[in-house]
Amino acid sequence: MGHRAPEIEGLIGDTAARTRRLLGLSADFEVLFLQGGGSLQFAMIPMNFSAVGDRVDYVDTGYWARKSIAEPERAGRDVAIVASSADRAYRYVPPAASIAARPGAKYLHVVTNNTVEGTQFRALPPAGIPVIADMSSDLMTDAFDPSACAMAYAHAQKNIGIAGVTLVIVRKSLLDGITAGPRELPAILDYRTHAAHGSNYHTPPTFSLYVTWLMLGWIEEEFGGLAALGTVNRRKAATLYDFLDASPFYRPLAERGSRSVTNVTFTLPSERLHCRFLEAADKAGFVGLAGHRSLGGCRASLFNGVTQEAVDRLVGFMDDFARRNQQEALSE
Amino acid sequence: MGHRAPEIEGLIGDTAARTRRLLGLSADFEVLFLQGGGSLQFAMIPMNFSAVGDRVDYVDTGYWARKSIAEPERAGRDVAIVASSADRAYRYVPPAASIAARPGAKYLHVVTNNTVEGTQFRALPPAGIPVIADMSSDLMTDAFDPSACAMAYAHAQKNIGIAGVTLVIVRKSLLDGITAGPRELPAILDYRTHAAHGSNYHTPPTFSLYVTWLMLGWIEEEFGGLAALGTVNRRKAATLYDFLDASPFYRPLAERGSRSVTNVTFTLPSERLHCRFLEAADKAGFVGLAGHRSLGGCRASLFNGVTQEAVDRLVGFMDDFARRNQQEALSE
Repeated sequence: MGHRAPEIEGLIGDTAARTRRLLGLSADFEVLFLQGGGSLQFAMIPMNFSAVGDRVDYVDTGYWARKSIAEPERAGRDVAIVASSADRAYRYVPPAASIAARPGAKYLHVVTNNTVEGTQFRALPPAGIPVIADMSSDLMTDAFDPSACAMAYAHAQKNIGIAGVTLVIVRKSLLDGITAGPRELPAILDYRTHAAHGSNYHTPPTFSLYVTWLMLGWIEEEFGGLAALGTVNRRKAATLYDFLDASPFYRPLAERGSRSVTNVTFTLPSERLHCRFLEAADKAGFVGLAGHRSLGGCRASLFNGVTQEAVDRLVGFMDDFARRNQQEALSE
Repeated sequence: MGHRAPEIEGLIGDTAARTRRLLGLSADFEVLFLQGGGSLQFAMIPMNFSAVGDRVDYVDTGYWARKSIAEPERAGRDVAIVASSADRAYRYVPPAASIAARPGAKYLHVVTNNTVEGTQFRALPPAGIPVIADMSSDLMTDAFDPSACAMAYAHAQKNIGIAGVTLVIVRKSLLDGITAGPRELPAILDYRTHAAHGSNYHTPPTFSLYVTWLMLGWIEEEFGGLAALGTVNRRKAATLYDFLDASPFYRPLAERGSRSVTNVTFTLPSERLHCRFLEAADKAGFVGLAGHRSLGGCRASLFNGVTQEAVDRLVGFMDDFARRNQQEALSE
């Protein structure tokens, strides 16, 4: 079956329509399905929306934010980090209201949820220039206000499907302002190409797109929309944070007020207990609790696919582990 | 599960190992799994292997070849079409031995199988410079000689899986020759990035990769390698071409000696019969027989997933259709 068959055109159209309904997008937004994950977006954003020497502003909230900053730096843009939480080891996010872009900057880029550090913005900064948000790990997890952003993007593999497709929502006015010439911008890396072809310029990643279509349908049918899903997700996170705050054994890493709803980071009293915990968790069927290799510690990811019941069972396991090892913890 | 989990690292490694065995690749080749299909390769090739103003040579064999040529032209390279089959409506491919690259050209690019026109090279041209082959529709369909090429690439969705992953084999010496600076080459579009990270620089398209792993395993286990699979594929194509050549009703489009083993193009005696044929084929369960929208006519694609039995049934259907409509054909 060719990628211009009605079945595929219909799949793309339906997935875009579900996206528009869930995010409450006006006709001012294009909805695109691309390949290359968030990492290709890091490169495409400066290529499309700025030229060599142009001011582009970034917020540095940790591991993925720094990755997003490396690309415009490579590409010879005048990059400024206009806000950073490096001073306290990225355990918080700068207050959105305090973030101001430089005069003349082409856009402000922010990573809304920081999966490695376990921090999250509650709102986008009121920058006065186009705000571009990497929402790879929290788009479609809670109610969304499109008015605050010029563009947002999310690879699918956290909350809306499997790896291979990246959802981009972008204002037509932002696309209209693109001035990059062909030498700077291959057709396939130009957002306008994909907008003009309804995300079917070349063969889309059909199966990944199909799974995203299923996930968005599940959000609509099971929850009735993002607000109700957000209530479920916030309750999942509260269950785990409340347990951590009450525990003398575990220590949550992110500061209150900046805590991520989707990624809960914490440490144990010692390296020995940390290793024993991961081994016991693995045996009990809780996989992927090791923190990101760049930071260490532990991390529980509570993406859309994780149920309240799974969080309850995790807390039960963690409580039991703490009781069984509390003597050793006291002697550390 | 994170993309650096042993399960995913193992999947990438196993799929690369199967690729190496099937194609007979020495350690001189890198095996990469990328995103973005053939279309992103069209852009990455000039970005990686040439600078603005550099000579890059292309063979023009039709629709997809022209797409591959558009990107270096946009990017300000000195592009020459050193061989073309435009003079006879792309119904043949230029003899490989007749193709010569210009002195100083950085590479010669050729599309080995032309899906739209139904033509195919039997061998790569002996260019004297690095030959880069788009083998999106015929890599892994027959025995392969790696000595003739510096790089070859194929999106998966024709013969080795589903859309979303692109196989690239590239000589380390070609990568060592890359001189593009960071301003010209974002990290994610630099082949060296993916080679250095074992195709796990960022999250790979895991499910698409898994299907490719399955397909390559099927080729190894079911056929014992590409030579035996090639025998099957050539027999499938011969079944259909022999029927077309013997038929006074259908007319094959590609010239003998240039005919594609995977895409058989043909026409019917009139537009009316053409439409009736497609409708009848669709009802009989033969989908996708319409030619590419740029060319019209009909096209039967005999990729790896199509069995000899399916080709036999198609020939039976086409024979029956010709008999039932031969009176009308004679009166056209």
